[in-house]
Formats: sequence, structure tokens, C-alpha cells
Amino acid sequence: MVILGIDPGIAIVGYGIIRYRGNRFTVIDYGAVTTPSALSLPVRLNIIYDSIEKLIDQYRPDAVTVEELFFNKNAKTALAVGQGRGVAILAAARKGLNIYEYTPLQVKQSVAGYGRAEKIQVQQMVKVILGLNAIPKPDDVADALAVAICHAHSVNMNERLRYL
Amino acid sequence: MVILGIDPGIAIVGYGIIRYRGNRFTVIDYGAVTTPSALSLPVRLNIIYDSIEKLIDQYRPDAVTVEELFFNKNAKTALAVGQGRGVAILAAARKGLNIYEYTPLQVKQSVAGYGRAEKIQVQQMVKVILGLNAIPKPDDVADALAVAICHAHSVNMNERLRYL
Repeated sequence: MVILGIDPGIAIVGYGIIRYRGNRFTVIDYGAVTTPSALSLPVRLNIIYDSIEKLIDQYRPDAVTVEELFFNKNAKTALAVGQGRGVAILAAARKGLNIYEYTPLQVKQSVAGYGRAEKIQVQQMVKVILGLNAIPKPDDVADALAVAICHAHSVNMNERLRYL
Repeated sequence: MVILGIDPGIAIVGYGIIRYRGNRFTVIDYGAVTTPSALSLPVRLNIIYDSIEKLIDQYRPDAVTVEELFFNKNAKTALAVGQGRGVAILAAARKGLNIYEYTPLQVKQSVAGYGRAEKIQVQQMVKVILGLNAIPKPDDVADALAVAICHAHSVNMNERLRYL
């Protein structure tokens, strides 16, 4: 199963594509799409849409997954991030893919084994689970890989429960 | 000049299409796209995208215009609205249309002649300017028509300045 994890935003969209087969993870690709703030909003949204579409065409993931976002302040940031998030989800939806959302708690629990894990602990576990030499940068990339791992674990759990 | 005004959101997207020619306004169409909250986010975003695309195909506007949004609280709402807004703007951008954003102050000033006008005053003026029998409902529709009028006034002003 190939999973595309996305950490959406407007200036930086982190992405990670992983393969999960027989309890083993392989990293296929990861990186970040960046849109300079000097560009107009429509152009930035178009870049995000096109980039996600291109990743899907290139890697043909079986599922797309994003973290649910919670903001306790700064509605302005939330609106901006929402715009990027909506467009990223739309790109996946229009490719006919299922989109799975996980809360930050679920991601932490799944990747670090502990819902209140620190960001750095989650990132360390992403590195270990995927056998990387270093923690992928920026944070958005590590976050995208983390939510992809979370989905893999979740599907795996559901598969096992089905055969109980 | 045909203008599509949009009041974006996730549950309700107001729209209004007006023609402005020789200082006269004609209403072509207006209404609201609604997406039930029982539907998944990707499906709701797809409905919004398809609806805006369809309006553009049907009425061939020369420009699309949306109000800039400011939230002073409720980041959760801002994120949700942002997702709908991003998708609506993307639909217009992918049709190659220019998108114009106006602040609430600009819209009030342009439609009601007064930047601190009350919502009801702006709605009354939308009704008068467009020669409607009643204030269009819900508010999102009146807001969409208001931002379309604002753009028409703005273009008109720029045209006149050009010939000074």
C-alpha cells in the first residue's frame, strides 16, 4: 500500500510518500512545496493543487492522509492554512482517492506510542521507523511522513481486527 | 462587463452574477451553494469547486471577486471557511479569470457610501442598486452581490481616472 501524507499550509506544504507492505515501511519520496508570499493567492493555490496532482500521478498512492488541524489562536493563520488545506484535499478528491484525517493525538499515539509526545520525539520516531539518516526538514515534511505512518498503522490494525 | 461575486464558506457559498454597462447594473443570477455537514469534507469541497466552475461556464464572467475575510475569533471557523474559500478561488483561477479581493471596509464604502455602514444598510443598497424587489437571502447572497458591485465601482473609477 502506497500512502501520500500531506501537511497542508499556504507557504509550505509538506509531503511524504511511503510504501507499507508486510509490516515494513519504505520511503518513496518526501519534500515540501513552497509558494513565495510575493505571489498572488490564486497563483499560490494553483501551485499547491498542481503539485499534489503531480505527486499523485507520479506515485499513484492508494490513499491520501492529512492531519486534522486545531488552532487555539490566530484566526488569520487558520484562514490562510485552510485555503491551502482545502485545495490539497480537493486535488486528492478529484483524483478519486480516499482521504483520511487523523487528529494530532492519533498521530502522536501511532508514531511515538504516546499521545502527549513532544514534536521532537515524533520526529525521531519517524526517522527510526522509516530508516532515514536524519530527521527530514522542514518540520512540515516530518509531519507529513508521520501522518502517513499513522494511516498505515491504522489500516494494519483494522486488517488484523477483521480476521479476529 | 460581467462580474461573479462570491461569498465563500464551507456550508454556504453565496454567489451573484451582475452585468455592469454604461453605469447600469443588471442582475443575471444569484443564489447559494449549500453543502450538508453530513457529507465528508472532500465531497463538500468538490461540490463547491464544481458549482463555481459551472457558474463560470454558464455565465462567462470577465472577473471574479471575493471579500477579504477577517476573523477576530474562532480559528476553527476560520479554518473551515478557508478551505471553502481556497477551493472557490482555485476554481476561478483554473478558468484563467482574474480574482479581485476587497476588504469589508471597501465593500461597505462602495455599496453604502460609508465604511462603517451596518449590514442591513449594505443589504438595502444592494437591493436598490440592482433594482430587486427584496433583499436576497441568505445574507451570503447579498454579500456576494455587494462585493460584485464593489468591483464594478472600482473598475469604473479606474477607467475614469485613466482618461483624466
